[in-house]
Amino acid sequence: MDYAGRIARVRAAMAEHGIGILYLPFSSDAAWLTGLGFERPGPTITNRPGDLVAGIYLGITHGPLVIAPRMGGEGVRADAADKPWLREVLILGEPVNYAATLRAALGSMHARRGTVAVSDRARAGTLLALQQALPDVQFISATDTFLAAMRAIKDPDELAIMRRVAALTDEVYAAILPQLRPGVTEREVATEIGRQGRLRGAETVSFPTAVLYLGANSRRGHEVPAYSGPTDLPLAKGMGIAFDFGFVLDDYCSDFGRTVFVGEPDKATRVVYDLVIGAQATAVAAMTADQHTCAEIDWLARRPIEEAGHGAGFTHRLGHAIGRDCHEWPSLTVGEETRIAAGMTFTVEPSVLLPDRAFVRIEDVVHITPNGGESLIRSPRELLVVGE
Amino acid sequence: MDYAGRIARVRAAMAEHGIGILYLPFSSDAAWLTGLGFERPGPTITNRPGDLVAGIYLGITHGPLVIAPRMGGEGVRADAADKPWLREVLILGEPVNYAATLRAALGSMHARRGTVAVSDRARAGTLLALQQALPDVQFISATDTFLAAMRAIKDPDELAIMRRVAALTDEVYAAILPQLRPGVTEREVATEIGRQGRLRGAETVSFPTAVLYLGANSRRGHEVPAYSGPTDLPLAKGMGIAFDFGFVLDDYCSDFGRTVFVGEPDKATRVVYDLVIGAQATAVAAMTADQHTCAEIDWLARRPIEEAGHGAGFTHRLGHAIGRDCHEWPSLTVGEETRIAAGMTFTVEPSVLLPDRAFVRIEDVVHITPNGGESLIRSPRELLVVGE
Repeated sequence: MDYAGRIARVRAAMAEHGIGILYLPFSSDAAWLTGLGFERPGPTITNRPGDLVAGIYLGITHGPLVIAPRMGGEGVRADAADKPWLREVLILGEPVNYAATLRAALGSMHARRGTVAVSDRARAGTLLALQQALPDVQFISATDTFLAAMRAIKDPDELAIMRRVAALTDEVYAAILPQLRPGVTEREVATEIGRQGRLRGAETVSFPTAVLYLGANSRRGHEVPAYSGPTDLPLAKGMGIAFDFGFVLDDYCSDFGRTVFVGEPDKATRVVYDLVIGAQATAVAAMTADQHTCAEIDWLARRPIEEAGHGAGFTHRLGHAIGRDCHEWPSLTVGEETRIAAGMTFTVEPSVLLPDRAFVRIEDVVHITPNGGESLIRSPRELLVVGE
Repeated sequence: MDYAGRIARVRAAMAEHGIGILYLPFSSDAAWLTGLGFERPGPTITNRPGDLVAGIYLGITHGPLVIAPRMGGEGVRADAADKPWLREVLILGEPVNYAATLRAALGSMHARRGTVAVSDRARAGTLLALQQALPDVQFISATDTFLAAMRAIKDPDELAIMRRVAALTDEVYAAILPQLRPGVTEREVATEIGRQGRLRGAETVSFPTAVLYLGANSRRGHEVPAYSGPTDLPLAKGMGIAFDFGFVLDDYCSDFGRTVFVGEPDKATRVVYDLVIGAQATAVAAMTADQHTCAEIDWLARRPIEEAGHGAGFTHRLGHAIGRDCHEWPSLTVGEETRIAAGMTFTVEPSVLLPDRAFVRIEDVVHITPNGGESLIRSPRELLVVGE
């Protein structure tokens, strides 16, 4: 990827907004800007001395300066070594003097007065430390000012990876379908989905895999809004299976949903199924660059569901932008007046919950082009009966 | 647990420091204060509309007010329902007006002027939104001012859980030892450790399980500082196996390390092994309440290792506080002048790396009492030869 070009474009945006310094913690923001890897969050919090000031400081002319904690610092230096746009790496000693470190780092950037922009995802503790070190500076959200908007438009290198992770996801789904035999548990299917992804090179899942069995017999529809992960419930005839899963490949995410049935679903469920895929198709067909706002796209899918009397069963936004993070800005949701533009990538995931009866969700990743929305996911959307 | 008492003690600390409002995002901080559950971070970022202002707002007299996003909001309300100390739950509509929401929430607390304390782990974007909503208020770190210090002292209910998760960890280690046969891979052992923990009720691992084979034959000592997870390397005679793993049970963490050998280790490795367990024993014996600072405890273990010429091979702090988070404040490290006090719980984890030869790490969780350090982990520390 053209990280040097990305840094230049970010500096142009900084100049436009009067920003002297940009701070990004080691995160998908920093990875997007520089290619530096980062640790994905673990199940519990770990804190290393120095974490609070670690990350990337980009000046208008100086830097990027990479500050790394002593623990793991040599790994960061090695990661930067093949990236000529990262020439300054400071590994902190211990104990860490935050104020002195920040004054030294930021002083060299000649931005003692002016505006500093930080990622929304930085820690509040970091922002407080920066505000103490630079009391005369104004702090703003880099995310809101320019960063989220720049990340929203995927370049061809990014789209190529997003196509590959979508294809991987299609392959996993195809590999799972023949395994949906009566008796197999939600947990077994979810574990197998993860295994099939790793076999194909996925780094991790995008989020904990959801496999939810329900239907007239299981009466678990009421659990959908508070779904807390797969259980040991065995698959049985008469159930629907709602999938929601995704993978990370070369740092980019997929997010995918389908609903299949063990035995023919009843008429009410079939009506809802057709309603959901129809709503999705209507929205995707309208996702031509520069034609609609995010809120309008949401309404295009929501309106037929509301008109059919199922509005209360569609409890969430239509979708969200996706890329290095599974959920990026903007969302396809009421009140979001951002216009969709070429190169954006969104999930489109209408759903309808019929409490204690059925839950239908269909989700694809859609790329916005001047000629309409292009689904990167190719798995069939037609109603599918499995396990027979 | 006595959450109502904890809220009262936090309010007393707020009054002492002139803090009008405390903000904690849904996190281990909020869980410690109120018992409310929270989503552990997933592999990639998810963003729900409203996440930026979600969490707990505690006034000196008002609140706690719980603000939850629409997505998942009913789950938060259900979680709060059996907690009489949480009577105010606001589920946000969409779209979310952050400024209006914050002004309403904080205005009702009569803290338009004064000091607002936020967790270090809150998002910078949240702090920026709070600062915009309340321009005349001073913002400080709740973590640094009182919160980390209060969380550091575990009460009897917390210690009871920490004993149980330590015992679970001992059981898993005992179950793993007979499985360490030549040919088994690092990845297989790590997977089995996770499975054995879940079988015993662990919610998750505390961090990704580390199983590192190395020794005279494997020459992987240089990989230790950049360890990136278990591999498909098979176990073979002549290797050492360095374990580092832990579990979460009822929201509290364990963190455990041992090093065992397949076949008798060479003399240099045995000398280092004795040095490491001796250093650990010296530190633990000195961990009587109110007798030493954290830095002094670090030095008690580090000094014999440095004097034996292995100081460069002990590359990290001696340990860290542990509880709801795997890494809490304070650390046993140079420059940390906090005195250890009764009820604190620390890992004590000296290690020595002999590059391309051996790596020895021993780690226990130690509870500070008026009568010395008490290891919650009971697994033997004597040199162990396995797989024969």
